[in-house]
Amino acid sequence: MEQIDGGITVVPGVQAAGIHAGIKKEEAKDLALIVTDVPATAAGVFTKNSVTAAPVLVCRQHLSDSTAQAIVINSGNANACTGELGMSNAQRMATATAEQLGIDKNLVLVSSTGVIGQQLPMDRIENGIQLAANALSTDGGNDAAEAIMTTDTHPKSAAVEIEIDGKPVRIGGIAKGSGMIAPNMATMLSYLTTDVNINSETLQSALTCVVDNTYNLLTVDTDRSTNDTVIILATGGAENSKLTDSKGNKYDTFCEGLQFVCTELVKMLARDGEGATKLVEVVVKHAKNRSDAKKAARAVAESPLVKTAVFANDANWGRIMMAIGKSGAEFDPYQVDVLLGDYLLVKNGMDAGYDEDKATQLFDNDPVRITIDLRAGDAEITMWTCDYSYDYIRINADYRT
Amino acid sequence: MEQIDGGITVVPGVQAAGIHAGIKKEEAKDLALIVTDVPATAAGVFTKNSVTAAPVLVCRQHLSDSTAQAIVINSGNANACTGELGMSNAQRMATATAEQLGIDKNLVLVSSTGVIGQQLPMDRIENGIQLAANALSTDGGNDAAEAIMTTDTHPKSAAVEIEIDGKPVRIGGIAKGSGMIAPNMATMLSYLTTDVNINSETLQSALTCVVDNTYNLLTVDTDRSTNDTVIILATGGAENSKLTDSKGNKYDTFCEGLQFVCTELVKMLARDGEGATKLVEVVVKHAKNRSDAKKAARAVAESPLVKTAVFANDANWGRIMMAIGKSGAEFDPYQVDVLLGDYLLVKNGMDAGYDEDKATQLFDNDPVRITIDLRAGDAEITMWTCDYSYDYIRINADYRT
Repeated sequence: MEQIDGGITVVPGVQAAGIHAGIKKEEAKDLALIVTDVPATAAGVFTKNSVTAAPVLVCRQHLSDSTAQAIVINSGNANACTGELGMSNAQRMATATAEQLGIDKNLVLVSSTGVIGQQLPMDRIENGIQLAANALSTDGGNDAAEAIMTTDTHPKSAAVEIEIDGKPVRIGGIAKGSGMIAPNMATMLSYLTTDVNINSETLQSALTCVVDNTYNLLTVDTDRSTNDTVIILATGGAENSKLTDSKGNKYDTFCEGLQFVCTELVKMLARDGEGATKLVEVVVKHAKNRSDAKKAARAVAESPLVKTAVFANDANWGRIMMAIGKSGAEFDPYQVDVLLGDYLLVKNGMDAGYDEDKATQLFDNDPVRITIDLRAGDAEITMWTCDYSYDYIRINADYRT
Repeated sequence: MEQIDGGITVVPGVQAAGIHAGIKKEEAKDLALIVTDVPATAAGVFTKNSVTAAPVLVCRQHLSDSTAQAIVINSGNANACTGELGMSNAQRMATATAEQLGIDKNLVLVSSTGVIGQQLPMDRIENGIQLAANALSTDGGNDAAEAIMTTDTHPKSAAVEIEIDGKPVRIGGIAKGSGMIAPNMATMLSYLTTDVNINSETLQSALTCVVDNTYNLLTVDTDRSTNDTVIILATGGAENSKLTDSKGNKYDTFCEGLQFVCTELVKMLARDGEGATKLVEVVVKHAKNRSDAKKAARAVAESPLVKTAVFANDANWGRIMMAIGKSGAEFDPYQVDVLLGDYLLVKNGMDAGYDEDKATQLFDNDPVRITIDLRAGDAEITMWTCDYSYDYIRINADYRT
């Protein structure tokens, strides 16, 4: 596996664009278009929030045949809590895109991100779709990554090349989202492309598994969006023999590549969490089972007190013990070790006699890794998060005004 | 029922003191003592955090006979994650107090609050216990309330007088805690006194019920402490015929008084939440059942995005819809109404066409009340919380350093 520069347009047969349609107030890109040269095998995972945005409902409809050729995405407006007009606007986005590209509207997927509860400015959207269709190019991946941003401070792309049947296969991805992020079964917005030759069941299976190990282990602020979406388009242009089985070496090679791309994107998302000054990896080892490992890791990664201590370079391990204690995971407090990087802070649930100055310096590491050994079993998990800073408050107090 | 000034020492037969023992670095009170003139019927509820502090374990032991005559509490050090030495120090606190008062050590309850993971300075504690015993007085309730504070900005007391069998009965309480507060079955530290004549089962039943309707519906930051404790001491000095049944008018009258005192304290705690600028009441109406009502209210009250919007006087109702949507409560998004104060923001899940300036002014109300009508059943609940401000970050980034 080789990491390569770029994102979704490293994959042969994929074009993209990102343009300013005028949905955001400021002069920033706010409409993205991703198109494959042929109808692609497609799979998606979406938010579990019961207040579901209109574009997510349209995606679910249009993915019923597991085929798609285009994704149109706007930022600046979430098209959520918008009722029937919102549904019809999401459908109009698909129709307008289909008309520009000369394809069936059922081949178009739709996403929106931004403020909840306002209707889309459809004249600007439709005009923007035309602009974006004209701007499509094989190096437009970064423009698309930029156009889907809201409070993100920079666009996020990652890509790899793997080999299956001796043939090169590429996987690229972009993602956005730095607040309202605690996906449970899906996440903010992420779009993945690949030329792997694969059937739809196997693609969905790979995506679901990888999302569970990556996006679902990311938390910025415990808040789950109404619009979370991860979509993958597989053009089938690579010359590997078709993957049709969710087992075996070839499938594993593909999942490994996909997991690498998604992990890179997840780290970028956490590092760019609203107000974040640090990327934090929370590793829970020797939990009784995966569910306990997740509970303990999530409790630490979501604790405002742990996150403010990390912001302050304060090795306040008492807050880590508090967090795992409230998590519901089963363990004996006096068996627990806690490490910052490779440095032991807590031995058997108590102060390991560490040096406070040395611990403080370890917060300069990137990422800041907190490892909790529960000595209760064999399960291990890594979650990604960031610290809580003054800027988290500033960004979210200012967002709409 | 009549609200009266003061706290625990409004109850005849109760003395208290709060002194500076030198546990905190600064020149502040850090050791409190509460004593009843006779062994009192006692009940308590404690943290459900599996990392349980030593003093909580001592309380559970000493409450096995439902009788207590003194409570000794230190702030500045939580005596949690302190192993066998921590347990023996908690027991020494009880013993030293018992010796000063000339009573059995099993009649002494012990609490600690402050930094986790450090051993208590026992010389200062024991010296402080002697000072406190000498300072006991029938108007020492406020000193005790002050001595249990950590990041609180002011002491918290409340009291009422009720009538049972035509006889006056008093209930007083103090509480502390402004961070690491999301009690599930108990809470930070709160001590209640009453002269009601009651047996231990009935007292425990009343306390458990009232805590579930008050402290367990308070959240500041989702983090549950290792030391949460609510204790009530009933001297039996009032002349009502003994309450022995958890039903009936007399029991209801007592619960009503107790609930009033606890609700007042809970509101003081939320209003004084770390960095809080506003007290927020989240009311969920017409939920399918109490569990759903709690889930929805908690999701709103704990959402960092809702709390930062409240800090900013921003009627960002989309975040409220997002929060109830992720809560797991069952409802139809397009049946939901949301009110700020009495002003309708959301009708049937969509913008009710409210005036943004008028909504902004409603954040001057105290408390700020957010009402969510789910139209899914008959259950209703009120939760208390506060907003998230820059100061929450400052306080928790600076706490230990």
